[in-house]
Amino acid sequence: MIDEGLLAPVARGHDGPVADSAFLDALVSAEYGLVAAYGDIGLAPADAVDTFAHACGVADRDGRSASGLDVGQVADAAVAGGNPVIPLVGMLRERMPREHRVWVHRGATSQDILDSAIMMVARDALTQVCASLTEAAEHLTQRAHTHRDDVAAARTLTQHAVPTTIGLRLTTWARGLQHAADRLAALELPAQLGGAGGTLASFVEITGSADRAQDLASAFAARAGAVEAVAPWHVTRWPVTELGDALVAALDAMGKLAGDITTLSRTEIAEVAEGSGGGSSAMPQKQNPTEAVLIRSAALRAPNLSATLHLASAFAVDERPDGAWHAEWPTLRDLLRLALGASWHVSNLARHLRVDAERAAMNLARSGGLVLSERLSLVLKPLIGADAVTAIVTAASAGDDLRSLVQDALTRHNIDRTVDDLLDPAAYTGIAAELVDRGRDTEESR
Amino acid sequence: MIDEGLLAPVARGHDGPVADSAFLDALVSAEYGLVAAYGDIGLAPADAVDTFAHACGVADRDGRSASGLDVGQVADAAVAGGNPVIPLVGMLRERMPREHRVWVHRGATSQDILDSAIMMVARDALTQVCASLTEAAEHLTQRAHTHRDDVAAARTLTQHAVPTTIGLRLTTWARGLQHAADRLAALELPAQLGGAGGTLASFVEITGSADRAQDLASAFAARAGAVEAVAPWHVTRWPVTELGDALVAALDAMGKLAGDITTLSRTEIAEVAEGSGGGSSAMPQKQNPTEAVLIRSAALRAPNLSATLHLASAFAVDERPDGAWHAEWPTLRDLLRLALGASWHVSNLARHLRVDAERAAMNLARSGGLVLSERLSLVLKPLIGADAVTAIVTAASAGDDLRSLVQDALTRHNIDRTVDDLLDPAAYTGIAAELVDRGRDTEESR
Amino acid sequence: MIDEGLLAPVARGHDGPVADSAFLDALVSAEYGLVAAYGDIGLAPADAVDTFAHACGVADRDGRSASGLDVGQVADAAVAGGNPVIPLVGMLRERMPREHRVWVHRGATSQDILDSAIMMVARDALTQVCASLTEAAEHLTQRAHTHRDDVAAARTLTQHAVPTTIGLRLTTWARGLQHAADRLAALELPAQLGGAGGTLASFVEITGSADRAQDLASAFAARAGAVEAVAPWHVTRWPVTELGDALVAALDAMGKLAGDITTLSRTEIAEVAEGSGGGSSAMPQKQNPTEAVLIRSAALRAPNLSATLHLASAFAVDERPDGAWHAEWPTLRDLLRLALGASWHVSNLARHLRVDAERAAMNLARSGGLVLSERLSLVLKPLIGADAVTAIVTAASAGDDLRSLVQDALTRHNIDRTVDDLLDPAAYTGIAAELVDRGRDTEESR
Amino acid sequence: MIDEGLLAPVARGHDGPVADSAFLDALVSAEYGLVAAYGDIGLAPADAVDTFAHACGVADRDGRSASGLDVGQVADAAVAGGNPVIPLVGMLRERMPREHRVWVHRGATSQDILDSAIMMVARDALTQVCASLTEAAEHLTQRAHTHRDDVAAARTLTQHAVPTTIGLRLTTWARGLQHAADRLAALELPAQLGGAGGTLASFVEITGSADRAQDLASAFAARAGAVEAVAPWHVTRWPVTELGDALVAALDAMGKLAGDITTLSRTEIAEVAEGSGGGSSAMPQKQNPTEAVLIRSAALRAPNLSATLHLASAFAVDERPDGAWHAEWPTLRDLLRLALGASWHVSNLARHLRVDAERAAMNLARSGGLVLSERLSLVLKPLIGADAVTAIVTAASAGDDLRSLVQDALTRHNIDRTVDDLLDPAAYTGIAAELVDRGRDTEESR
Repeated sequence: MIDEGLLAPVARGHDGPVADSAFLDALVSAEYGLVAAYGDIGLAPADAVDTFAHACGVADRDGRSASGLDVGQVADAAVAGGNPVIPLVGMLRERMPREHRVWVHRGATSQDILDSAIMMVARDALTQVCASLTEAAEHLTQRAHTHRDDVAAARTLTQHAVPTTIGLRLTTWARGLQHAADRLAALELPAQLGGAGGTLASFVEITGSADRAQDLASAFAARAGAVEAVAPWHVTRWPVTELGDALVAALDAMGKLAGDITTLSRTEIAEVAEGSGGGSSAMPQKQNPTEAVLIRSAALRAPNLSATLHLASAFAVDERPDGAWHAEWPTLRDLLRLALGASWHVSNLARHLRVDAERAAMNLARSGGLVLSERLSLVLKPLIGADAVTAIVTAASAGDDLRSLVQDALTRHNIDRTVDDLLDPAAYTGIAAELVDRGRDTEESR
Repeated sequence: MIDEGLLAPVARGHDGPVADSAFLDALVSAEYGLVAAYGDIGLAPADAVDTFAHACGVADRDGRSASGLDVGQVADAAVAGGNPVIPLVGMLRERMPREHRVWVHRGATSQDILDSAIMMVARDALTQVCASLTEAAEHLTQRAHTHRDDVAAARTLTQHAVPTTIGLRLTTWARGLQHAADRLAALELPAQLGGAGGTLASFVEITGSADRAQDLASAFAARAGAVEAVAPWHVTRWPVTELGDALVAALDAMGKLAGDITTLSRTEIAEVAEGSGGGSSAMPQKQNPTEAVLIRSAALRAPNLSATLHLASAFAVDERPDGAWHAEWPTLRDLLRLALGASWHVSNLARHLRVDAERAAMNLARSGGLVLSERLSLVLKPLIGADAVTAIVTAASAGDDLRSLVQDALTRHNIDRTVDDLLDPAAYTGIAAELVDRGRDTEESR
Repeated sequence: MIDEGLLAPVARGHDGPVADSAFLDALVSAEYGLVAAYGDIGLAPADAVDTFAHACGVADRDGRSASGLDVGQVADAAVAGGNPVIPLVGMLRERMPREHRVWVHRGATSQDILDSAIMMVARDALTQVCASLTEAAEHLTQRAHTHRDDVAAARTLTQHAVPTTIGLRLTTWARGLQHAADRLAALELPAQLGGAGGTLASFVEITGSADRAQDLASAFAARAGAVEAVAPWHVTRWPVTELGDALVAALDAMGKLAGDITTLSRTEIAEVAEGSGGGSSAMPQKQNPTEAVLIRSAALRAPNLSATLHLASAFAVDERPDGAWHAEWPTLRDLLRLALGASWHVSNLARHLRVDAERAAMNLARSGGLVLSERLSLVLKPLIGADAVTAIVTAASAGDDLRSLVQDALTRHNIDRTVDDLLDPAAYTGIAAELVDRGRDTEESR
Repeated sequence: MIDEGLLAPVARGHDGPVADSAFLDALVSAEYGLVAAYGDIGLAPADAVDTFAHACGVADRDGRSASGLDVGQVADAAVAGGNPVIPLVGMLRERMPREHRVWVHRGATSQDILDSAIMMVARDALTQVCASLTEAAEHLTQRAHTHRDDVAAARTLTQHAVPTTIGLRLTTWARGLQHAADRLAALELPAQLGGAGGTLASFVEITGSADRAQDLASAFAARAGAVEAVAPWHVTRWPVTELGDALVAALDAMGKLAGDITTLSRTEIAEVAEGSGGGSSAMPQKQNPTEAVLIRSAALRAPNLSATLHLASAFAVDERPDGAWHAEWPTLRDLLRLALGASWHVSNLARHLRVDAERAAMNLARSGGLVLSERLSLVLKPLIGADAVTAIVTAASAGDDLRSLVQDALTRHNIDRTVDDLLDPAAYTGIAAELVDRGRDTEESR
C-alpha cells in the first residue's frame, strides 16, 4: 500500500475510479469484452462467455468485474514481464474450465487489453470530473447573477487597474470550467485491438478473414463501451495525449479560479472566503483557503505530468516502445486522480464560497477614485487636453482630493458631466453585465 | 541578435514566420486593425485609417505591415514596462499627424494587441506547418502503396515480434501526421479585445454603447483575420494552451516517425536511409540520419515548452497575472519555431527517404521463421497440443531447423497445411494491406 | 488503496521506504523528536518523553515509530486542513496522559514536522538507492575488466563510427552510476524547526530565550538524525530541489545504461541480453529486455517530476505558500520511489547481464573495415594525399574490398605499415583500456 | 534574426554572453585551444598556432576570437550535418595556409569542440550571474540591517499568521540568492576531448601514445580555461545537467523573491514598491512591479528547460545520441539567458526597492492583535485553561476588543504580565534579529 492518499489530500476520497483495483477491474472487463466479442461474431460459444462472466466476476450491467483478484498479487507477478496483463491472463485462464480456456485473451497482446482498460477507466473518471465541473459552473453562474452589478477592482500586474464586477469574475471562472468540461466530454476514447504488431494478424488467423477480424474489433469496442479506432493506435498515442491535454486544461481552469481565490482571500483583501476555511491549531484566528490551496497544488503538478505523456508519445518507437508506453500508465492515472480530486473541491468551493461585496467595493474605493483614471483620460483629454488630465491624476496620486480636482476642471471648462457619474465605478464596467447574462443564457441552454 | 539559429539547426531557414520582425509586424497590424475597426463602425475617419496604413507601413493585401520599425529599438524600450506594445504605441503615434493620433491604440490595453498579434503570427505559421505535414503525409501514403506488401519485422520492446509490412509502417506515420495536421487546422485562434480589465469599458465609453463596443470587437477580429472570441480571454488562456497542445502533438507525431527512422537506419538494421544523409568529415563512410536526428531534438524539447504554457494558464491570476502572461510569448514562439522547422524536415525526409525492402525482408528472416511463432501457436496448438508447440519453438530457438520441425509435426499429425504457407511472413500480415489502402483512400478524399 | 504498484512495476517490491505508512511513521518520529528535544534541553520531564515513546509506539533504535495509527484514517482527516500533521497531533495527544499532553507538537507548526519527516524518509530511501547503485557499479566495473579488450562498435547518431571496447562501455555506465551515488551521498538533509512564521518565536516564548530556542532546534535535528539547518528553510526550498536534482540525475545515469541495453539487445544487434528476459505468452521466442524497459520508463518520468519541485520552490511565496508546498510531497515521493525501484533493477541487471563479445566483434566487422576510415585518413592522408584516401573509402563503401584497396596503396607508395595492423580494430581503441583500469582503481579505492 | 529579445524583455540587454556570436567565438576559441594544445605538447609548430590566432581572429587575452565569421552563414551551413562545427572547420581551414591546415580540428570530433565551447560560454555567463546575485544579496543584507526590528506580518496560506520582521524577510531572500550563487560558483565545467567514440583513439594515433594523448587533453582543458574531465563525458551528461540544476535553483531563489515582491506590492498590501515601477499609458496612476513580473516569468520558464536537459541526459544512448545532444544546446542557452537577465533585474530591484515599514506595521495591526493568538495561547493556556483562551480569541475574532478581553483575564487571574507586552508584535519575533545579524556576519565574512 504505497499510496493511500496521505500525501495527496486533494484527491483523498475522490479517486476511487482510478485506484489500482479499478484498473484491475477494467483489465478483467477488457478481457471479458474480448471473449464476449468472439461470442458476438459467432465464434465463441455462449457458454464460454457466460462462464467467463461468472468465473471472473463480471456481473454488473456495465460489464465491470468483481473478480476478487488480489491487486498486490497481480502487481507482484507483473514485474517479471513488465505489465500486469501477462500474469492476469494466467490467473483468468485458471478460473476457466479447460474447454473454454482458449478464448481467454485469444489473439490479443497485453497492450490491447491495457490500452482499452485505461480508456475504460478514463471514461468513468471523466464522467465524474465533468459532473463536478458542470456543477461548479452552475453554482458560479447562479452566484454571478446575484453579484451581477457589484463592483470590484480589476487587478493587472497586482495593481488596481479599472473597475470590474464580482459577477464578471464569477462568470469568467464558470466559463473556463465549462469550456474545459466540454473539451473533456468531446474526447474520443477508442478501444485498442491490434494484436502483437498492430496488424490484427492473429485475429485474421483465428476468424478466418480480414473482414471478420474487423468485425471482432468492432464488437470488442462496443463491449468496452468505447469508440472504435480507425486503426490500431499502439504507437500513435494521440488518444492518450489528447486525454492528458484536456485533463491538464481542466486543471488549468481550476487553478486559475483557485489562484484568484487564494489572492482574494488574503487578509488585506478579504473579498472572498471559503465556506469552511481550514483551521490552524496554533493560530485559531486563521481561516485558511484550504480547498483553493489544494486545488492549486494539483494545478501546479498537472502540466508536467501531461508533458510526460507527450514525451512518451514522441518516443513511441517500433511497434511497441522500450519504456515510453510503461511511463504512461501511472502518469495518466495521476492526472485523472488530480482532476477527480480538484474538481470535487472546485464544486464544493463554488457552492460554499462566501463573497463579501461590501469589502470588494471598499477595496475598490481605496484609491479615492484613481481607479477611474482611464475613464477620466478618455472623457477629459479631448475637452481639457492631455496635460491637464495628467496634472489632475498626478496631484491626486500625491494625495490631493480627486473629486475636487475633477469638479474644478468640469466647472472651469463648462463641461456637462458630473463628478458623481465620472467617478462612479459602476458606470465604468463596460459590458460586464452583458457577459454575465450571456454566461447564464449559455448555461441554461445546455 | 541573441539567436540567429546557430544552436537550432532544425529550424534554421524555416522560422521566418515567427521571427521577432514577424511579431513586430503583427503588432503593427493589430494596431492597424483597431484603427480600421473604428473606421468600420463609423467612428474613425477614413483618412485616419489610410494615414495609419501609410505612416505605419501597412500596405499589403493581408494587412501586414512593413513598418520599418527597428526591432532592437522596440525591444530595448520594452524592458521598462515589460512588454513591447507600450513603446510601440508611442512610436506609432509619433508617425501619425496630430489630428489622427487619438485613434492609435484607442481604448486598448497592451494585452489586446499582443494576444491578437500572437494569434495572427500563429495563423501564418500554422498554415506553413500544416502544408508541410500534409505534403509529408502524401509522400508517405504514396510510398506506402509502393511497399504495400513488402514484409518487415514488427518490433516490440526492441525484439522481433511478428511480421508487418513496410506499407503499414509508412501508413501509420502518415496517419499520425495527418491527424496532427487536422487538429492544427481545427484550432480556434481568437482575437482579443477586452480593454484594461476585460470589461470593454473603455470601448463602451468611446463608442457610446455596449452594442457598438461589441461591434468594434467584431470588426477588430475580422480585420485581424481571426475568430471573434465569445468573451475576452485575457485570463482564460485556453486559446494559447490548445495551440500549444496541438503543436506538441504534431511534434509527437514527427518524433515518432523520426525515432523509427533513426532506429531503422542503424548500421545493423539499415532498412531505411535518409536521401542525403549528413556526412562526417572524420568518418567519410558514415551516412547519418541527420534530419531525423534534428526532428527528434525538436520532439524532445516540445513537451516541456507546452507544459510551461499550461503553467502560465493555471497561474493567470487577477485580470492580468504577474509573470505568467509574459512567460507565454517566447515559449509559444519556440514551439511554433520547432514545428515549422521539424515539419519542413519531415516533408523533405518523407520525399527522399530510401527504403530497402530487400534488407527489411532479410532482417525479418534472421530468426529462421521464429517470428511466426505466434502463428504456429494459433494453428498448431489445437491440433498437436500446447506442449508440442512449445517443444518446437524451444528447439528452434536453440538452433534446430524450424522448417523441419514443423514439417515433421504436420506429417506426424496428418495436418493439411504446408510449411511454406505457415512460415510465410507475407501470409501473416493481417489487415496491413487493408490499412494501407484505407490510408490512401482517406488521403485521396481530402 | 489508490496505488499498490499495479501500474508501476518498476518500483513494486522496492518502495517500502516511501510508502504512506513510512511517512506516517516518520511524522510520528518527528513529533517524538520534538518531545525528546524538549527533554534534552531540560524542559520536558523524562517521563513525558518516555510516555510518548510508549504511547505512540516509538520503540526501535532509530526512533522510528510503530504507532499503529491507521494511514487511511489520518489521510481522511488530513483533507480539511490540507495536511496530515493537523489531525495526527490530535491523535497523538489523545494517547498521552493529560499532564504530558502539552509537550506534543509544542510550539511547532505542521511544516516543521512534515518537512523534517520528509527528510527522514528521504535519508532512509537514499541509503537503499546508494547501496543499489554502488552494487551495480561494482558489478559493471568487475565485468568491464573481463571485457577490457573486447572490441565493439562505437555508434554515433546510430551509425558505426569507430571501434571502442565493451570494457569501456561498461566502465562508462559504472562511472555514471557512481557519480550519481556520490552526489546523493553528499546531500544535506536538514531538519526544519521554525515555528509558524520561521522566526522560532513560539520556541523562544516556551524556552525563555533565543539561545535555548536554538538549542532546542539543535537537539531536534540530532533526534531526527538530520543536519541542523543554518536557518529555517520553510520558503527557501533548496533542500528539496537539491534532493530532487540528485535523484533525477541518478535516474538519468540509469536511463543512459538502460537505453544502451535496450539498443544493444535489439534482435539485429544482440550484443547483450538480460539475464532473465521477460517472456511473452504469445511469442515464446522473444526475450524482452524487461528490466531495462522498466528503468527507462522511470528515467522518462523523473525529469518532469523534478521540474515540479523547482516550480514549487520558485512559487514558495510568503512564509508558507498557497499550494506550492503541498505539491512537493507526492512529487518527491514519486521521485524517491522511481529511484528505489530503478536502482534495484539496475543492480540486478548489472549482475545478470549477458554479454556476447563475439557478436559485438561480428557487428563491428560488418562494415568490412570501413569503421577504421578515420584511422586510414589519419595515417594515409599525409602519405598518399586526401583525394586518394577518399577514393579508397568511396570504392569500399560501394562494395570493393577495402583490404585490397589499402594493400594496393601501401604497396604503390612503399609505406611501411601492414594492412593487418591498419584495419585491426583492437589497435584503434585509444585509451579505452586505461579508462577501464582507472575505473577499477577508483572503485577499489572506495 | 529570429530572436533579438522582443519577446523576452527579462533578458534584453543582458544576454550578450550567450548570444549566437558568443557561441561562435567560443567554438573558434575551442578550435584554437586544440591547435595551441598541440603546440603545448610539442607537436604543432609555434607558427601554426600563431597563424591560427591571426587568421581566425583569436587575439585577446582570454583566447576569445574576433573571427569575423558570419553567424548566419555558419548557421545555414550547419543544417546539413546538424551542427555548426562541421562547416566551421571548413571555414577555418580555408583561412589557414596549406602547410598548417592539418592542425585545424586535428583528431577531434564536433562534439569535442561544441561541448567545450558550451562550457566556456557558461563560465563567462556564470561569472556575470554570480556577480549580480552577490550584489543583490549585499544590498538586501544591508537593508535587512536597516529594517532589522521593523515588524511585519508573516503570512501562511495567504493569511496573517504571526509577526515577523522586514529584516528577516530581506535576509531570507539574501540567503537564498547567496546559496544559489555559491552553488553556481562551485560547479565543475569540464572541457571535452574524446574523439569520435570517446576513446581518444585519433589522438593516440596522432601523438603516438596514450600518455601523450592525455597530455594533449590536459593542455586542451587548460587552454579552454576549463577543468580537465576524469573521462570523456560525451554520453555522461552530468556536467550539463548539474549546470542546468544550479541555474534553475538560482532562478527559483529569484522567483521566490519576486513572488514576494509582487505580493507585497499589491494595492491592498503595499509594503514594498519597485524603485521605478513600470507605468501604464492608459492608467497613469499604476505603478507596476515590472521587474518582479519579468523575474517571475523567467522563474516560471526555467524548471521545464532544466527538465529537458535531464531528458537529454537520460536519452544519451550510444556514443553520441540521435537527438538528445542536439536538444541541449538551445535549452541550456535559454537557461543561461534567463539567469543573466533575471539576476540583473534582481540586483537592480534589490538596490532600488522601496520598503514601507510603516505600512507593514499597519497591515500587521489590522487584526487588532489577533496575529498574536499563538502567543496568547502559549502564555495563557497554562494559566487560565485552553477553553478560556479559545473564548477570548473567538470573541475577538467576532469583533470584541482583544486588549480588554486579555486585560480582564490577566486581572481576574492575577497574572503578572502586561497586555502591552503580550500584544506587542515586536516582542514576539523570536530569533528574527539573530538571523538578520547572522546573515550580515556571513555576508561580511565572504
